[in-house]
Amino acid sequence: MSLLIVGSIALDTIETPFGKVSEELGGAAVYSSLAATLFTSCALVGVVGHDFPSKNLALLKQRSIDVRGLQKQAGETFRWHGVYDYNLNSPQTKKTSLGVFENFTPTTFKHFDQFPLVFLANIDPDLQLLVIEKTARAIPFLAMDTMNYWIEHKYETLSKVIAKVDLVLMNEAEIRQYTNQYNLITAARMIVKQGPRFVIVKQGEYGCILFSAEEIFNTPSFLLEKLRDPTGAGDSFAGGVLGYLSNYLSTLEKYEQQPNFREVFSFTTMKAAVLQGNILASFTVEDFGPRRLLALTHDELDERYKEFEKLTKY
Amino acid sequence: MSLLIVGSIALDTIETPFGKVSEELGGAAVYSSLAATLFTSCALVGVVGHDFPSKNLALLKQRSIDVRGLQKQAGETFRWHGVYDYNLNSPQTKKTSLGVFENFTPTTFKHFDQFPLVFLANIDPDLQLLVIEKTARAIPFLAMDTMNYWIEHKYETLSKVIAKVDLVLMNEAEIRQYTNQYNLITAARMIVKQGPRFVIVKQGEYGCILFSAEEIFNTPSFLLEKLRDPTGAGDSFAGGVLGYLSNYLSTLEKYEQQPNFREVFSFTTMKAAVLQGNILASFTVEDFGPRRLLALTHDELDERYKEFEKLTKY
Repeated sequence: MSLLIVGSIALDTIETPFGKVSEELGGAAVYSSLAATLFTSCALVGVVGHDFPSKNLALLKQRSIDVRGLQKQAGETFRWHGVYDYNLNSPQTKKTSLGVFENFTPTTFKHFDQFPLVFLANIDPDLQLLVIEKTARAIPFLAMDTMNYWIEHKYETLSKVIAKVDLVLMNEAEIRQYTNQYNLITAARMIVKQGPRFVIVKQGEYGCILFSAEEIFNTPSFLLEKLRDPTGAGDSFAGGVLGYLSNYLSTLEKYEQQPNFREVFSFTTMKAAVLQGNILASFTVEDFGPRRLLALTHDELDERYKEFEKLTKY
Repeated sequence: MSLLIVGSIALDTIETPFGKVSEELGGAAVYSSLAATLFTSCALVGVVGHDFPSKNLALLKQRSIDVRGLQKQAGETFRWHGVYDYNLNSPQTKKTSLGVFENFTPTTFKHFDQFPLVFLANIDPDLQLLVIEKTARAIPFLAMDTMNYWIEHKYETLSKVIAKVDLVLMNEAEIRQYTNQYNLITAARMIVKQGPRFVIVKQGEYGCILFSAEEIFNTPSFLLEKLRDPTGAGDSFAGGVLGYLSNYLSTLEKYEQQPNFREVFSFTTMKAAVLQGNILASFTVEDFGPRRLLALTHDELDERYKEFEKLTKY
C-alpha cells in the first residue's frame, strides 16, 4: 500500500537560539513524506521552481519518495524565513515568498487513484477541495491539515473540505479558531459532527489528543533534552501517523473488499499511529530542517518508542 | 501516618469567564489539606485574622483536618483577588492584602515532630527555612512549593530550602526562572543535584513531569470538558501527591526502622502519587474555590482514575 501527500515544498531560512540555516529543504509535503517513508512507500505531489536545487530532489529520491507528481515550473520555489525564540513554539515569520506555489494546481488526478490514503497537507482549501472532488470515489481514506490563514480567509471552503475527509489534524490554536470553542473536547466533537471520523489536536511539546465520536486518547510528547529547530514537527507527526496507517493496510488481506473502508482503522490502530507520529516528530526537532529525518532509521524509531514507554507507562 | 501542611489560608475573590465568587475559602494550605484528606489524616499550620468566618473553620473540621496549628490573630485574613480569562492559565492578580499572613511565624514546632511528612506550601522561604531548621531531624520527608515572587526576591534563602527538602514542586515558569534554563530536563537535573530526590514540574492543563536523578515520568492531565476555576489546582495536586505518600507509609511495617527513610518512596510509588494528585486537581477546577474538593469522595477519585486510564493507556 502507499500514501500520497499533496502539499508545499519549500526552501526555508530558519533561525532558532541554537543556530541558523538558509535555503534548507522544507515544506509540509517534504517533512510528511520523509516521515512516512519510515513506514510505507510514499508519493509526493507539489511544485518547485526552476531554482530548486537538484541535490534536494536527490535527497527525496534517496529516501525512495516517488516524485513523479512533483511539478517543476518557471519561477521561484516557495521560500519561508522564520525566527524562533527560546520557547520554540510559534515562529515569527520574517518573509514568505510563494513563488510558483501561488498558482500551483495538482493536475495528475489519474495518478491519484492508486493510493488508498491521501494526505492533504496545509495548502489552499480550494486545492484540497479540487483534489477531493476529482478523486473522492477513488480515495478510501483522506486526511488533512490546515493553518490560521485559511481558517480566517477561506472558512467556507475549508468547512467543505473538513466535511469530506476522514481525519483532521490541527493544532490547539487552529481548532479553537475554526470552531470558536476554547475547550478542546467541545471543539473536537464539533468537527467530528461535521463528518471526519477522527480529529487529532497537536499540542507541540506537550503532546497530542486523538478524538473519535466515542473515544479520546491523550499522550505527552517524547521529552527531549536537546531541541534545535521545531520546523516540520507537526508535518512529520502527520507523516508518521499516515505512514503507519498505510503500512497497517498492507498487513490486511484484501482491504478493498471491506464493506466500509473507513471502518478499517479502529481507534486502537489510530492510537498506535499517533504514538508513531509522536516519536517521529521528536526526532525532527533535534536538528535543523529535515536533517535528522533524512538520517533516521526504523531501528532508532523502535528504540525511542521503548524509551517513550518508560517515560509514560504506569 | 499523617501529613503536616504549612501555608497560606485565604479569603479569595475569583473571577473567571464562568462566574465570580467573593470571600471564598482559599489559600495553598487549604487546597492541599482538603486534597490530602482523601488519603490520610492531615494537620494544617497557618494563620487567619479575626474576620475569618467560623463556617470556614467548620468546613475544614468537617473534612477531619487537624486545625490545632491554625493561629487566629488580631487583624485581617489574607485576601486575594484574581481574574482569569478563557485560557484559565495565569490569573491577573487584581489585589493582594496579606493581612495577618504578613507576620505569620509557625511556632508550634514540638507539634511538628509527630509528622513523618511535611509539606511547605508556597510561603516566604525564610519561614520554610525556619520550619526546616527547627525540625529537620524530626521530619523524614519534606516537600515544598514556591512562586515567582520568592524566586525573584529571596533566591538565596530559597536555594537553602531547596537543598534541604526531598521533593520540590514547581510549575514550568518557576523552574525555568529559578534555574535560568529553558529545557525542563536540564532544569530538573540542576535541582536534583542541589539535594532533592524528586522534582515535579507542573504544566497545568497539560499535565506534569516527575524527575529523579535516574528516571522521568510524564503524564497528561485528565482532559475535562467543563472547567470553571483553576484556582488551587496546583495545591490540590500537591496535597494529593503527599496524601498518597502519607497513606503509603501507613501500609509499611515499622517505617521508622528504615535505615534511610528517604529511600522508602521508590520512583514507582512516586509515580502512583503523581497520578493521584493529577486526578485530584482535575476535580478542583470543576467548580469555584474548594467547592468540588469539599464534596469529593474516594469513590469518585477511583472512578475518574479508571477513566484516566482509558484516556491514556496504550
